[in-house]
Amino acid sequence: MAWYELKSADDTRLDELAERFQLHPLHVQDCRDADARIKIEQGDNYHFIVLRPLQLLEGEEELHQSPLTMFVGKEFFITIGDEQCVAIREALERARRAGSDTLPDRLLYLIFDTVVDSYFKAVDTMDDRIDVVEDNVLDNPSPSTLQHIFDLKRALIDLRRIIVNTRDIGMRLQRDSELIDRELYPFFRDIYDHLLRLADSVETLRDLLNNTLDVYLSSVANRTNQVMKVLTVLSTIALPALVISGIYGMNLKGLPFLDSNYGSAIVGGMMVLSTVLLLILLRALRWL
Amino acid sequence: MAWYELKSADDTRLDELAERFQLHPLHVQDCRDADARIKIEQGDNYHFIVLRPLQLLEGEEELHQSPLTMFVGKEFFITIGDEQCVAIREALERARRAGSDTLPDRLLYLIFDTVVDSYFKAVDTMDDRIDVVEDNVLDNPSPSTLQHIFDLKRALIDLRRIIVNTRDIGMRLQRDSELIDRELYPFFRDIYDHLLRLADSVETLRDLLNNTLDVYLSSVANRTNQVMKVLTVLSTIALPALVISGIYGMNLKGLPFLDSNYGSAIVGGMMVLSTVLLLILLRALRWL
Amino acid sequence: MAWYELKSADDTRLDELAERFQLHPLHVQDCRDADARIKIEQGDNYHFIVLRPLQLLEGEEELHQSPLTMFVGKEFFITIGDEQCVAIREALERARRAGSDTLPDRLLYLIFDTVVDSYFKAVDTMDDRIDVVEDNVLDNPSPSTLQHIFDLKRALIDLRRIIVNTRDIGMRLQRDSELIDRELYPFFRDIYDHLLRLADSVETLRDLLNNTLDVYLSSVANRTNQVMKVLTVLSTIALPALVISGIYGMNLKGLPFLDSNYGSAIVGGMMVLSTVLLLILLRALRWL
Amino acid sequence: MAWYELKSADDTRLDELAERFQLHPLHVQDCRDADARIKIEQGDNYHFIVLRPLQLLEGEEELHQSPLTMFVGKEFFITIGDEQCVAIREALERARRAGSDTLPDRLLYLIFDTVVDSYFKAVDTMDDRIDVVEDNVLDNPSPSTLQHIFDLKRALIDLRRIIVNTRDIGMRLQRDSELIDRELYPFFRDIYDHLLRLADSVETLRDLLNNTLDVYLSSVANRTNQVMKVLTVLSTIALPALVISGIYGMNLKGLPFLDSNYGSAIVGGMMVLSTVLLLILLRALRWL
Amino acid sequence: MAWYELKSADDTRLDELAERFQLHPLHVQDCRDADARIKIEQGDNYHFIVLRPLQLLEGEEELHQSPLTMFVGKEFFITIGDEQCVAIREALERARRAGSDTLPDRLLYLIFDTVVDSYFKAVDTMDDRIDVVEDNVLDNPSPSTLQHIFDLKRALIDLRRIIVNTRDIGMRLQRDSELIDRELYPFFRDIYDHLLRLADSVETLRDLLNNTLDVYLSSVANRTNQVMKVLTVLSTIALPALVISGIYGMNLKGLPFLDSNYGSAIVGGMMVLSTVLLLILLRALRWL
Ligand SMILES: [Mg+2]
Ligand SMILES: [Mg+2]
Ligand SMILES: [Mg+2]
Ligand SMILES: [Mg+2]
Ligand SMILES: [Mg+2]
Ligand SMILES: [Mg+2]
Ligand SMILES: [Mg+2]
Ligand SMILES: [Mg+2]
Ligand SMILES: [Mg+2]
Ligand SMILES: [Mg+2]
Ligand SMILES: [Mg+2]
Ligand SMILES: [Mg+2]
Ligand SMILES: [Mg+2]
Ligand SMILES: [Mg+2]
Ligand SMILES: [Mg+2]
Ligand SMILES: [Mg+2]
Ligand SMILES: [Mg+2]
Ligand SMILES: [Mg+2]
Ligand SMILES: [Mg+2]
Ligand SMILES: [Mg+2]
Ligand SMILES: [Mg+2]
Ligand SMILES: [Mg+2]
Ligand SMILES: [Mg+2]
Ligand SMILES: [Mg+2]
Ligand SMILES: [Mg+2]
Ligand SMILES: [Mg+2]
Ligand SMILES: [Mg+2]
Ligand SMILES: [Mg+2]
Ligand SMILES: [Mg+2]
Ligand SMILES: [Mg+2]
Ligand SMILES: [Mg+2]
Repeated sequence: MAWYELKSADDTRLDELAERFQLHPLHVQDCRDADARIKIEQGDNYHFIVLRPLQLLEGEEELHQSPLTMFVGKEFFITIGDEQCVAIREALERARRAGSDTLPDRLLYLIFDTVVDSYFKAVDTMDDRIDVVEDNVLDNPSPSTLQHIFDLKRALIDLRRIIVNTRDIGMRLQRDSELIDRELYPFFRDIYDHLLRLADSVETLRDLLNNTLDVYLSSVANRTNQVMKVLTVLSTIALPALVISGIYGMNLKGLPFLDSNYGSAIVGGMMVLSTVLLLILLRALRWL
Repeated sequence: MAWYELKSADDTRLDELAERFQLHPLHVQDCRDADARIKIEQGDNYHFIVLRPLQLLEGEEELHQSPLTMFVGKEFFITIGDEQCVAIREALERARRAGSDTLPDRLLYLIFDTVVDSYFKAVDTMDDRIDVVEDNVLDNPSPSTLQHIFDLKRALIDLRRIIVNTRDIGMRLQRDSELIDRELYPFFRDIYDHLLRLADSVETLRDLLNNTLDVYLSSVANRTNQVMKVLTVLSTIALPALVISGIYGMNLKGLPFLDSNYGSAIVGGMMVLSTVLLLILLRALRWL
Repeated sequence: MAWYELKSADDTRLDELAERFQLHPLHVQDCRDADARIKIEQGDNYHFIVLRPLQLLEGEEELHQSPLTMFVGKEFFITIGDEQCVAIREALERARRAGSDTLPDRLLYLIFDTVVDSYFKAVDTMDDRIDVVEDNVLDNPSPSTLQHIFDLKRALIDLRRIIVNTRDIGMRLQRDSELIDRELYPFFRDIYDHLLRLADSVETLRDLLNNTLDVYLSSVANRTNQVMKVLTVLSTIALPALVISGIYGMNLKGLPFLDSNYGSAIVGGMMVLSTVLLLILLRALRWL
Repeated sequence: MAWYELKSADDTRLDELAERFQLHPLHVQDCRDADARIKIEQGDNYHFIVLRPLQLLEGEEELHQSPLTMFVGKEFFITIGDEQCVAIREALERARRAGSDTLPDRLLYLIFDTVVDSYFKAVDTMDDRIDVVEDNVLDNPSPSTLQHIFDLKRALIDLRRIIVNTRDIGMRLQRDSELIDRELYPFFRDIYDHLLRLADSVETLRDLLNNTLDVYLSSVANRTNQVMKVLTVLSTIALPALVISGIYGMNLKGLPFLDSNYGSAIVGGMMVLSTVLLLILLRALRWL
Repeated sequence: MAWYELKSADDTRLDELAERFQLHPLHVQDCRDADARIKIEQGDNYHFIVLRPLQLLEGEEELHQSPLTMFVGKEFFITIGDEQCVAIREALERARRAGSDTLPDRLLYLIFDTVVDSYFKAVDTMDDRIDVVEDNVLDNPSPSTLQHIFDLKRALIDLRRIIVNTRDIGMRLQRDSELIDRELYPFFRDIYDHLLRLADSVETLRDLLNNTLDVYLSSVANRTNQVMKVLTVLSTIALPALVISGIYGMNLKGLPFLDSNYGSAIVGGMMVLSTVLLLILLRALRWL
């Protein structure tokens, strides 16, 4: 059994292999398409599989995807993937350790399983980031928190699509009697089980992230309400004093206590009293 | 018939049993995975089942899950679960009471039924908590109520997933002629019926909880509106008095009533009159 | 043919009947479960059916449900239901009028049809109540309207679940050749048709009720906006007068018109003019 | 072949026809039910069809529906519909023009096709009305616009249900070899195609109408924001002048410039300067 | 093999072709319907296909669609499309380059593939426009941004429907053994694969666009909150000074410091002190 490892789809060896193993030109073209969809397709004497292992780089919100394409025949196995992507390197290394006489379906299992394991890391990292945002959003809802929420939403949209599309491959492989040896069935079922769990987790993360947006909007509404209350209380305290002092500042005759020596004390008492009465009234009416 | 009860998947007896009964290594691995998905899988000569009984601890919002894994063969029955979890302990005790000659499918029924009963307790507790929040949210919408709503939402997301995944097991078991004796069919259908009812209840709880969030936001909007009205009414009352008293405080000649002995009474009347007219006008225009 | 009418599942005759007709213990248990799910299940020689007829009591928002359980055999018919519930009483009375030699499937039709008719009353009452709320919400959006909307939502959630679960029974019965005589097929199809119409109606009510919530929130936002405008217009009118009168109240030299006999008239004109210009400016800029 | 045209289901000829052609009593009852569901049902020797052609009257938001029921046998054709409804009149007239020897399935096609054409008019009218609302909502979001949006929503809910239920009839008829001659298949498929297009359109209208509600709420929020800004700018302009003039209105000794002949000019300059500095500061901090 | 290219469905040659190849009158009618639905239908000896290639014109938000209809027989191929639409012109030119002896299914592939490629351009342009809106909405949320969001939403609704309906054709063609030669299967599967990718992309775009609307509303709420804070802080600063200066402007006896030479300094200090204390208090209570 021969395993051909290509680092890049631009490698001219791909064309030679295509001729030798009668790879369909459209599959070769898909190898060279940076946006190829995650999928499995049956060729004349092989299966063609596109995966998109992913990395969540430290400090960056965006997911980094890198295509890993495979041709899985009965007698040959071709992988095309850039090992600068950690997930691809780990997957290929694990397959290499299995030894040179490993059959293609077993190699496929080893690689597919490692790729799906890389999704768990991505989901865990997303989970941690959402936890951080959840804490921020109640303590300190700022526009930058909002920006952060939407960056996470965007990453989660991508992550969800990748997991859902990969799950479709997993479902198909666990019953593919042509490609997979019966003894390997439980192993592919295990991968499918992990993909179901990942899909569950990513749905939960989506719900939690939507919650943080609702908390954000609620927090801003609450704060506006509170600022309004402060303004209203301040006005309630100041307005009686302003009105009364304005009245006693008029150049008119006949105001009481104008000539009293305790005039300012009396009027000051009026100010304090009217303010207190007003506050008690508003509180009693449950208006504040 | 032999029933092997293990308290922990780390017990080395699991490896002995795996060898004796040819348990698939992936299933043994699932036993040792704290996050194993709720599921049923068919092995060569047994069924492998993962349940996640749960407890809602007093005063804590979060659900506590503890895995209970089972291997159900024709001639053997293996359970792995930590009896510190009340739901697991109750399920195993009920099965033990059935006597030592009980067949595996009957034991499975007793355990499965008890686990599903534990979900009713969780749903009831959630129901009570949502009732409390519903009362709070109209009487006293505070940020801590909001926090409480979102903690409940998070618990409900988990509860819903557990019930939905367990329901899938229930649906499969009620028609599994290989594992279940025909006489037990109605009993497994009964469990499935309970799981359908639980799924209905949890959907209703979700709707009610979403309602409380909408009530919360509406209440905050209402209160902001009311605080604004108070501020506007206060301003409406104060502004005429402030403008008039300001005018009569100017050091200018030619203002009417400056020299009248009833000046302050006349001007005070003007203040009251203009305030009353303004309030009547705003009310008539339905602006307040 | 024998029809056994029980008023309560606690009646000991139920146990005798269970023994005589070999009713499954789980079905007897369901009869005694106040929260039993709406469902149909096949027993060994009978069908077991749980319905939940409902009443909308005058002046109460909540739906009152009361279980009506039935065992429908070839040669016997057992009903268990509390006739204090109007819908149950009407259904049983209609069945009794059919005469003592009526076959079980015909009795089932008469009861089932009457129960589904009771749903139309509930849907109509809900419809009327939503109409009232729709009128209130635009004319007078108050917190009590909001409370009313959410009470209706809660009742609608229950109503919808009851109708949807009953519809599932209706769909199953219209093709159940074992239980239902071919001649009765169109009658059960008619009930199913009514259940489809009820499900349509309840979906429409749900849409309309969600609309009222959106109208409520929009109305509150509108009113806050309007109160803000009133406050801003009042401030716009008062501020120039306050600033100008403040300036002329200063104990400083060199202010124009201080010694003019027409000083207060000129400055009063300045106040009016600046207020008018400010209002025109804001209107021209479409800021108010 | 005989075509019986009834203007009303209360016509006693319906009972005669029911007896002659053995129409099921439940179908006769459906004819007399003003709220009968849109549906097709198979009778013993005929098909029973309920349609609900509709009109959007000028200047009225609500849809006017009028039931058109049909019994389509091999040798007879019965229609019951009130020709005061324009859509019913047009459908029947088109069928009459086909001549007296037209077969029932052909008559059904002519009527059904005309009824579906009447839906296009309704959808187009709704489209125009939504266009008008879309323009209004950005230029002039008022409570009456809101009322208009919700009236359209209600009409669209009804329209959608009618189209969806009619589409189900269309799907069934295009493959009904018992009722429809093979040569007419493409014609019924064409009607089904039109119903699919209508369902697409009504979904699009629903999305567009939901957009207008979001625009409405956004516009109100924007305007509240703008009114607040105006109030804040006005306060920013007035407050320094008020504070400074208040200070110089105090009856205290030791204030600078009290005795200067340029006192009022200097203090006036201070007022202007502090206002300008405050505005620049707020702008620089991006707070306004 | 004959390929008939018509520029317009009004061409009288269409009627000649219809007669010669027995095209169904309803299909000819669909050709002349500007709003014909995207679909595939089987005729007696041909397939009838309606596509709607699209262009996103520079600087215009709306999508321009132009119908391209085809009759694909075993021995003939008819295309009807206006080559003023760039996508139609490119598709037909590519098919012409294949040479005059190309079979109909191959011609169909070439045209269909080019049309689907034109969708990628539309999706990419939408993607770019949403990127621009995303940047605008955080930096500068204005009503014109809102208008832009809703124009994009409308275009996306149309784009989504076109892609979804075309995808249904793609799914059907990839398994149509009657129309398509087995050797061409992988090529039609490739088109279907592209349509799946397009559907994924348009869903993602929809999520991102919905996010921008949420960001918009959040930004406006934030800004209202901030403006309120500015107003409240300004009031907090001004009110103590206004109250104190009002008090010292009263014509009353007995106020302290009235006769002190440092009166204005002392009172000024009181003003500053009370303002600072008030700000500290509000900050300590976390009210601002
Ligand atoms: Mg988490
Ligand atoms: Mg697993
Ligand atoms: Mg799972
Ligand atoms: Mg979920
Ligand atoms: Mg959520
Ligand atoms: Mg949302
Ligand atoms: Mg409750
Ligand atoms: Mg039960
Ligand atoms: Mg239920
Ligand atoms: Mg529900
Ligand atoms: Mg709800
Ligand atoms: Mg929501
Ligand atoms: Mg929602
Ligand atoms: Mg109504
Ligand atoms: Mg009916
Ligand atoms: Mg209906
Ligand atoms: Mg609906
Ligand atoms: Mg709605
Ligand atoms: Mg809503
Ligand atoms: Mg339109
Ligand atoms: Mg369509
Ligand atoms: Mg939609
Ligand atoms: Mg759509
Ligand atoms: Mg929308
Ligand atoms: Mg929305
Ligand atoms: Mg058509
Ligand atoms: Mg993008
Ligand atoms: Mg591709
Ligand atoms: Mg895709
Ligand atoms: Mg998506
Ligand atoms: Mg979104």
